[in-house]
This record gives sequence, C-alpha cells and structure tokens, in this order.
Amino acid sequence: MAEKKRVCIIGSGNWGSAIAKIVGKNARELPQFEERVTMYVYEELIDGKKLTEIINETHENVKYLPGHKIPENVIAVPDVLDAARDADILIFVVPHQFIHRICSSLLGKIKSTAVGLSLIKGFDKREGGGIELISHIIAKELKIPVSVLMGANLASEVADEKFCETTIGCKDKLVAPFLRDIIQTSYFRVVVVDDADAVECCGALKNIVACGAGFVDGLGLGDNTKAAVIRLGLMEMITFVNVFFPGGQLSTFFESCGVADLITTCYGGRNRKVSEAFVRTGKSIAELETEMLNGQKLQGPFTAEEVNYMLKLKDMEGKFPLFTAIHRICVGELKPSDLIDCIRSHPEHM
Amino acid sequence: MAEKKRVCIIGSGNWGSAIAKIVGKNARELPQFEERVTMYVYEELIDGKKLTEIINETHENVKYLPGHKIPENVIAVPDVLDAARDADILIFVVPHQFIHRICSSLLGKIKSTAVGLSLIKGFDKREGGGIELISHIIAKELKIPVSVLMGANLASEVADEKFCETTIGCKDKLVAPFLRDIIQTSYFRVVVVDDADAVECCGALKNIVACGAGFVDGLGLGDNTKAAVIRLGLMEMITFVNVFFPGGQLSTFFESCGVADLITTCYGGRNRKVSEAFVRTGKSIAELETEMLNGQKLQGPFTAEEVNYMLKLKDMEGKFPLFTAIHRICVGELKPSDLIDCIRSHPEHM
Repeated sequence: MAEKKRVCIIGSGNWGSAIAKIVGKNARELPQFEERVTMYVYEELIDGKKLTEIINETHENVKYLPGHKIPENVIAVPDVLDAARDADILIFVVPHQFIHRICSSLLGKIKSTAVGLSLIKGFDKREGGGIELISHIIAKELKIPVSVLMGANLASEVADEKFCETTIGCKDKLVAPFLRDIIQTSYFRVVVVDDADAVECCGALKNIVACGAGFVDGLGLGDNTKAAVIRLGLMEMITFVNVFFPGGQLSTFFESCGVADLITTCYGGRNRKVSEAFVRTGKSIAELETEMLNGQKLQGPFTAEEVNYMLKLKDMEGKFPLFTAIHRICVGELKPSDLIDCIRSHPEHM
Repeated sequence: MAEKKRVCIIGSGNWGSAIAKIVGKNARELPQFEERVTMYVYEELIDGKKLTEIINETHENVKYLPGHKIPENVIAVPDVLDAARDADILIFVVPHQFIHRICSSLLGKIKSTAVGLSLIKGFDKREGGGIELISHIIAKELKIPVSVLMGANLASEVADEKFCETTIGCKDKLVAPFLRDIIQTSYFRVVVVDDADAVECCGALKNIVACGAGFVDGLGLGDNTKAAVIRLGLMEMITFVNVFFPGGQLSTFFESCGVADLITTCYGGRNRKVSEAFVRTGKSIAELETEMLNGQKLQGPFTAEEVNYMLKLKDMEGKFPLFTAIHRICVGELKPSDLIDCIRSHPEHM
C-alpha cells in the first residue's frame, strides 16, 4: 500500500456526514491518503435544488447534518459507481436495506484490491433461516475484505467534536493502520481489535437489550433492576457471539462497541424510549412507531425477532431468557411485567 | 460443616438492615442454618428508647430502614462480642472506620472456624504507604478467612424487594454454597466468583469513576463522552487490579460488582451528583460535603487520593490518566475542563 489511498464514503445521512467531516480532514492532512474524498449522495431535491450541488457549493449537508461544514475536499457524487470506482477504501454508511442494491451496482467495477469499512448496524435475514452480518454480505457480494466500525457514537455529538471513542474490527494487520488513521482525530479515539464479528454483533444486539432497559423504566423498577437487565443483556450478547460467531475475545466487549455503546443505548436512545412508552401506554410497538418515529421501524424489536427466529430453530431460547422474553413482550405473547420472572433463573445464576 | 450454621450480622445501618431482612428469612427457611440470627446494633437512643429494644419489639429499624419489617428471628444485640461469639458466619456491614475497633473487641473470642463476609466498600490506608483491602484487614486481625459481597445494590431498592443481582467473591469452594444460600432470594440473585480481591476493588474504585462521570455531566459534554469516561474508568479498574492484586479474571468485571455497579454509580449516586455540582458551582468538594451531605465525606475523592498516593509512589500515574486527572481536579490542581485533555492519549488508544 505505497501509493496514496483514495477514500470513498458511500452514504450521506446524519452519521455518514459526521464521518465525512472526520475523513475529509484526515485525507487532507495525512500523506498516505489522496486529498480528494468522494461521497456517494442519494440524489434528492431540496427546494428545487439538487442535494449534491448544495453540498458541493456550500459544503454542508443541509438536510441531514445542518449547521456543520464538511471539508471542501469531500466531493458529493450522485452516482455510486462514479464515487466508488477508483477507491481503495470504501466506507459503507447507508441504511441496511439499500446494501444489496448498492453492491450489485458496484460488483466487478471497483478495484479488486479495495477494502471496505462498514458502519452499518443491524443484521440481515439469511435465506433459509438465521441471520447474516452486513459486513459479510458486502464482502461476499463485492469479493473484498470488509472491516467494521461501531461504538458509543451519537452522530450529532461526533459532529460537535465532543470527545468519544470508537472500535474498529479489522482482521488484517496491514489494513488496520490505514483504517485507524483515516478515522482517528483528537476527539474521536480509535481502538482496533481483530474480532470484527463480535464488534458488529454488539452494534445490533445492544438494541434488544435497550428494549429491556426501557421496559424496566416503564415498570418503574429502579436502578438495581435496570443494571441487572443491562448486565444480563451483555452476558447474552457474549454468549450469542460465542455460539454463533465463535473465536472472539472477551475483552472486545469492554471496548466502545460493547459496554460503552450498550450504556448510552440503554440510558438514551429511541429503543429505550419507545419501550418505556410501550409499557406506560399499553399501545403496540407498531402504533408507537407511527406516533413517535414517523412510521420508521424500531431496530430493537426487529432484531429481537430475527434473533429469536434463529434461537427457536436451534432450540436455544433457554440459553437466552432475556432476549427471548423481550421478543415475546414486543409481539404481545407476554406482558411487560413478566420480564423479571423470565430472568430470575437465568443461566448466569446457576 | 454438618451442624446448623449460626449467622451474625455486624452492623445495622441502611444496608445492614436490608441484608438482615434477607438473611433472617433464609435462616428461618433453610435447614443448614440456625434460625436465630444475631445483629450487632450500635446502641443509640431514639426518643429516649434504646434502638435495640425498638428493633426487638417492633422488628423495624426505625432509624435506618423505616417502613420495612425485619424477620422476628433476627435479634438486635448491643454488644458486638455477645452477637458474634458463637457465630459460624460473620457478616460485616459497618462504616469502614469502625472495623479496627470491632476486630480488636472480637480477637481471640470468636470461633476459630468462623468465616467472614464483608459488605464494606472502600480501601484503608496501609501503614508505610499504599492501600489495604478491608477484607484483608479483617482476615489478618481476626485470623479467619473473609469473603466479600459487592454489586449494584442500592439498599432501599433491595429492601423493596426489587429484582437485582450481586457478586460474592469467595476463594473457598466449601464455604461458597453457604454464603450464597444465606444471601440469595428470588429477587436478590447471587453469582459467586473466586476472584475476591477484584470484586472488592471494584466496590471502591467505581466511586472514582463516578466523579469523572459527574464532571462530564457538569461540563455538559454529552452521552458519547460520558460513555467513554465510564469505559476508560473500567479499563483503569481492570489495570489497577492486574497491577496491584494480580491473578484475577477479566470475566469478574462483567459481574454485578463490576459493570453493573459502575453503571448505577455513574448515573445515580452521590459521587456523580456532588461532582456535577463541583463543576457547575465552582465550590470545593469540602464545601459541597457540608452543603449536600451534612458534612459526610464523599467516598470518590477520598479513594482517588488514596489510589493516587500509591500510584505516585510507584511512578505509575501515566498508566492511570483518568484516575490521576480526577484526583487532581478534586484537589484543585487541575480545572474540570482539563479532564478530556488528560485522557486523549490514554494507554488504551496506543
């Protein structure tokens, strides 16, 4: 990797734009990167003007990250292939339902030596049952190695340059320093681990636990109980990775992607909030999605369902009583007040 | 251990009384324990009447845990030796400054086969520098093995029988089941680990981290930063145990004594609260102790000082930049706003 590396950001939502701020600055300042960074922007019209043109003229994503300047060397590009064709590092930060379409646009047309970095949280359903990691999908479809970045990283606070940490999961020791250097700043601190699957699982599974934390808040059960539910959730996250993506390290769960992201998600975050309202109002998750999220799907109940589908298939619900109870409560098979009875005899207490 | 075990609780404050509720019930219901449990109560007069008499007549600790019945088989005893003389299991739950005096009252007069369980949080200063664990002090002074119990256990919520977990650190595989059985209920779930020193260190060190969390709140730095400070605090707790009490297991920090207690302390708790006020008001810790705590000493700054004394002595402040910064901020050597600069280049980020 001696030539200057070209970087492309695929995605330009709130998180993509916050990352563009960081990546653009690093690409300009560090000698190992080509200064020009491309950013694929899904084209839309804002007051009759194209969003890519607005970004390239004002250097601000007025729709998804208003009030923050994106460095001028970040160029918005409306065609994903134009943006990605020459890139050595592809940073994926789109909603996960778009990933298949993007990969099929790019297949066979990008550099064969390119590497990916996925910032996408959540699982995908695998054909024939089970779940698939998003980074695995990208790797398989584009035939390139894909690392991941996850952490306690609310986009708005990152854009405000408030101090935080993040975790990069990268198996390739030669690639890792490039990924770290394009991402790390004085306020956005990177730890690289090689345990990429565990890092990615944390990003999806924490949302299930956050629903449990929200139920506890809704039930008014107090700090001790909430801490117990968060801890048991963390233990089920660890067990889940051990069972389905074995070979990881316990220490990965102490990284920002693990315990830190879990904490912020269980104290702030929409999964916690909607789950609390679920208990207090008695409305269904679907009703609350309409009322509180403008119809957007809540990640936690959806991930809980995907995970439960797999646990049921493998007759493993008993090993994951918290994940199982949260799913059953979300779909109305159990009452929220049944949560605690489901975890009194947790495998952790045997 | 074939005969019925006699249990004595040494201490009757808020936490001691909540534990007496649990221990009394288990002693009555389980065949391996003698039904009668003694509780050493520091005698004081409440409206002219002795507290021990009130407890033995009304079965309520009207001063320290009003509104909760203590089982009738728990007998309040004003003399610590009378309470402890025949006990097989001694549960220590007194403020830590009283421990030396209590030990010297008991030395040579208790059963030589007795075992201890310490619920006391905090370190003690060692003569000649450094810190000493409270359980080690009791073990040394009384010449009995001492286990510990720590966890996310706010006494009032435990007394309300809200679900939570706790951790017992016990090195003796024969003793552990007795300790678990006398403590565990359907709402108070026990995990036993053999890593007693790590369990005990967690109970003291978390208060330092909570000061850091309070500074972040006071500075208005947001959720990402708070999660990063809590995580880096946890990593320094782990390093501290590795350096000063080696031989522990990483998994212990995932127990209730570790991550769960840390979370509740950094979101609720007086250390967080006073530290936030410290930033917002500009007053000294001593002034705030007078104003907010009726003159009681705040644990976090005090533990930070003890720990710093040892780190300085061993030239190890650089390995613990968060603990060090928190201490320096508490004593006025640094401004709270310096906190983040002190941890930007944390050893974790190397």
